[in-house]
Amino acid sequence: MITINIVAVGLLKEEFWKDAQKEYQKRLSKFCKLNIIQLQDQTKFSEEGKILAEEEKLIEKNLQGKVYLLEINSKLYSSEDFAIEIDKIAQTNSIITFVLGGSYGVSQGIKEKIKDKISFGKITLPHNLARIVLLEQIYRAFMILSGAKYHK
Amino acid sequence: MITINIVAVGLLKEEFWKDAQKEYQKRLSKFCKLNIIQLQDQTKFSEEGKILAEEEKLIEKNLQGKVYLLEINSKLYSSEDFAIEIDKIAQTNSIITFVLGGSYGVSQGIKEKIKDKISFGKITLPHNLARIVLLEQIYRAFMILSGAKYHK
Repeated sequence: MITINIVAVGLLKEEFWKDAQKEYQKRLSKFCKLNIIQLQDQTKFSEEGKILAEEEKLIEKNLQGKVYLLEINSKLYSSEDFAIEIDKIAQTNSIITFVLGGSYGVSQGIKEKIKDKISFGKITLPHNLARIVLLEQIYRAFMILSGAKYHK
Repeated sequence: MITINIVAVGLLKEEFWKDAQKEYQKRLSKFCKLNIIQLQDQTKFSEEGKILAEEEKLIEKNLQGKVYLLEINSKLYSSEDFAIEIDKIAQTNSIITFVLGGSYGVSQGIKEKIKDKISFGKITLPHNLARIVLLEQIYRAFMILSGAKYHK
């Protein structure tokens, strides 16, 4: 069974986001070993460059297997494209890691280090909702790959 | 104060989606009069064409003011584009209606009738999550237009 790591900067505070995450964790347990590696944002620092540099250090400790950065200004994927990509990578990798930045995005260093980038759209989402969208798309990918009927 | 109608096919079942919706309703109350017109999906019919035809009738009764259809295969908007569009339309309209299809999307008739379409990305989302994303983008638009700081 493939391992999927989501490395996400920022904590989920509201119960409804936590419950939405739980629901997708439950659904995904049939398809993969899912680890959500939630990193404390570094907004205790006041300067944006410092925040991103500190978050970069935390992210870098958690990059395992084939790594993708979720990045708005990169190649746009449809749900089907995303499913095909996961399927392809799973042939030769046992771990896939998706990195989701926090409120300030990610540092230039992270953008340069992680060559493979995925964009789900041109809209900016808050980090909590972005995490739920990513979980749903991973679940949808497995549903597409299993040939199951899964509605909008 | 502008009126924004969201005409959405499909009920929110899980409490976490209802609570997420409530949170954005609360936040949006500062900026607009928001009406969420939730239509019962017609999946009691077994044939897809029939479902969409019945849902079309329900949708048609609720098209007021300037109407947009959320449609994956249409013009991609960024959050900033979307804010500019809302601002422009609000100059000459007191009501904006956004239509969100259900599990089967919308009928060809609705696609032809509603000329103005918006896509937030190439990914397919379930109707419940799509509704939360739309609410968040409307909120984000008002935050952008008010010049407020609003993070990812």
